[in-house]
Amino acid sequence: MSNPVCVEVTRGNLVESRHRGSVAVVDGDGKLVLSLGDIERGVFPRSACKAMQALPLVESGAADAYCFGNKELALACSSHNGEDAHVALAASMLARAGRDVSALECGAHWSSDQKTLVHQARTIDKPTALHNNCSGKHSGFVCACCHQGIDPKGYVGYDHPLQQQIRATMQSLTGTPLGHDNCGTDGCSIPNYAVPLRSLAHGFAKMATGNGLEPLRAKASRRLFEACMAEPFYVAGTGRACTKLMQIAHGRIFAKTGAEGVFCAAIPEQGVAIAVKADDGNGRAAEVMVAATLARFFERGSDVHAGLTTMANKALSNWNGIHVGDIRATATLAA
Amino acid sequence: MSNPVCVEVTRGNLVESRHRGSVAVVDGDGKLVLSLGDIERGVFPRSACKAMQALPLVESGAADAYCFGNKELALACSSHNGEDAHVALAASMLARAGRDVSALECGAHWSSDQKTLVHQARTIDKPTALHNNCSGKHSGFVCACCHQGIDPKGYVGYDHPLQQQIRATMQSLTGTPLGHDNCGTDGCSIPNYAVPLRSLAHGFAKMATGNGLEPLRAKASRRLFEACMAEPFYVAGTGRACTKLMQIAHGRIFAKTGAEGVFCAAIPEQGVAIAVKADDGNGRAAEVMVAATLARFFERGSDVHAGLTTMANKALSNWNGIHVGDIRATATLAA
Repeated sequence: MSNPVCVEVTRGNLVESRHRGSVAVVDGDGKLVLSLGDIERGVFPRSACKAMQALPLVESGAADAYCFGNKELALACSSHNGEDAHVALAASMLARAGRDVSALECGAHWSSDQKTLVHQARTIDKPTALHNNCSGKHSGFVCACCHQGIDPKGYVGYDHPLQQQIRATMQSLTGTPLGHDNCGTDGCSIPNYAVPLRSLAHGFAKMATGNGLEPLRAKASRRLFEACMAEPFYVAGTGRACTKLMQIAHGRIFAKTGAEGVFCAAIPEQGVAIAVKADDGNGRAAEVMVAATLARFFERGSDVHAGLTTMANKALSNWNGIHVGDIRATATLAA
Repeated sequence: MSNPVCVEVTRGNLVESRHRGSVAVVDGDGKLVLSLGDIERGVFPRSACKAMQALPLVESGAADAYCFGNKELALACSSHNGEDAHVALAASMLARAGRDVSALECGAHWSSDQKTLVHQARTIDKPTALHNNCSGKHSGFVCACCHQGIDPKGYVGYDHPLQQQIRATMQSLTGTPLGHDNCGTDGCSIPNYAVPLRSLAHGFAKMATGNGLEPLRAKASRRLFEACMAEPFYVAGTGRACTKLMQIAHGRIFAKTGAEGVFCAAIPEQGVAIAVKADDGNGRAAEVMVAATLARFFERGSDVHAGLTTMANKALSNWNGIHVGDIRATATLAA
């Protein structure tokens, strides 16, 4: 059985490309609210699970000890563009633990955002680990280690105490055994674990509602979500989908993308969370999928519904600004 | 019926993403040599058909009049990186017809190749139409007009005499009626026509063999293919799949990609041509698909087969250079 076509890309009057995928919407008790395609197959959440990976930073007391506010916590959950403000804040987080860029083990890369890359090319010789889209998460990791008296060296390793804490946290949230069998190495070198889409959505629904969580974790979860929703620029950056989704909703939606076509989101006021995966790993499809799914939970005619619907049905322009087609959610998804 | 999974992307021991698609291999007489998935559905060839679109340039005598050699003809068929050599050659082509960048109607954009973009950001204020990946094709268009005494102004328009010539040429090659019904606007603003993958492959097989073509067209086709195979850098650029495929084969393979997951290729010595389309429009999938399909036509153990197989099974590394997974042709495709 193949997953349904969730997103179509048109040109002229024809459909040019098609994206298949799966969608799970789950509430805090694990009840399936909406399901499309195979939601039991293991999916690497990649960066979509950064808010889960940031829980030890908050639960350990490190975030308080280093006076992290919303911006720092948002950056700890981010896949950022490497804009100047992102880079500076990551450096500041490390400095508060007496560390610097040399403590980061995520590797370096130029921004994947074109405008930012042009700026970087003109202002720096080459990117450092602070420019890595994961530098906020990794700075949070280093701080979590330092505050707990754990040597951060080798913190990306499967057996490092911090990764053990993260693994236990994510296993508890998703209710899925995590180990070498479902482990892959992420772009930034830390372990990432494939879990069913349904379990991933359930984990985020627990974070959104606090259902079944100890008070410490429920509070830390709420704090991370609120930080991201308050400072969406620090979760991604200018023009990025995560940032736009949270700006549209003014504190009513948490959203975080991951590589290879994953997107997770939560609507705390409704007690539900969403996880989507485009089969082919394409981010443009995942963005439409999560926006269209979110739109189903907001009243037609409201600003939030209108904003989400716009993100789920985008006009595509060519180099001369001519409208050449659209990318849109299919009826299956948007119904 | 969904198309088969042709390409898998792995992470650790698991498949992370899957690309479906279709493949047609056809000989010069139109006989189907190999078929996977739906090859009768209309597909926009996008830039994969640039060699067809360049035929009026050669057939009209413009290429001879302006002393175009292999490099200029390769650039006329190219989607280039915007590297300095590409930009300079496009300007030179225009100059030979007494024109300059102001004649180009393709729009401007920064290079999509990261290394080139960094160089561009450091050396130019902003990109011009000469940096557009289609500037070689458009320079060829302007030259074709000038030589024929046609005003190039508006040459991107559906009703412009040059687009009429191109439409007639492509209709004859593909045996498919082309008109408003199957027309879309390409990234560079010219008309692009959706044709069945099978017909697209047949058109390229005619160009590769000369079967059923008038001598003028057969000769022009051979000349364009030979130019691309002799100067593969000018068809795409450093590190690009078209360039690598033709470098691997030393004059035995013609290959040209198009946006949204299309790739066309021909093996003139075997009289066959290939057209592939990744359903989801992803270029990484199309590259694996065309390489794996081409490999089936070369002897196992040969250098060409080895080079193609390497392109159809690539290791994926993360920012730290760690091997995290692979992108590979499925057994369905590679069999």
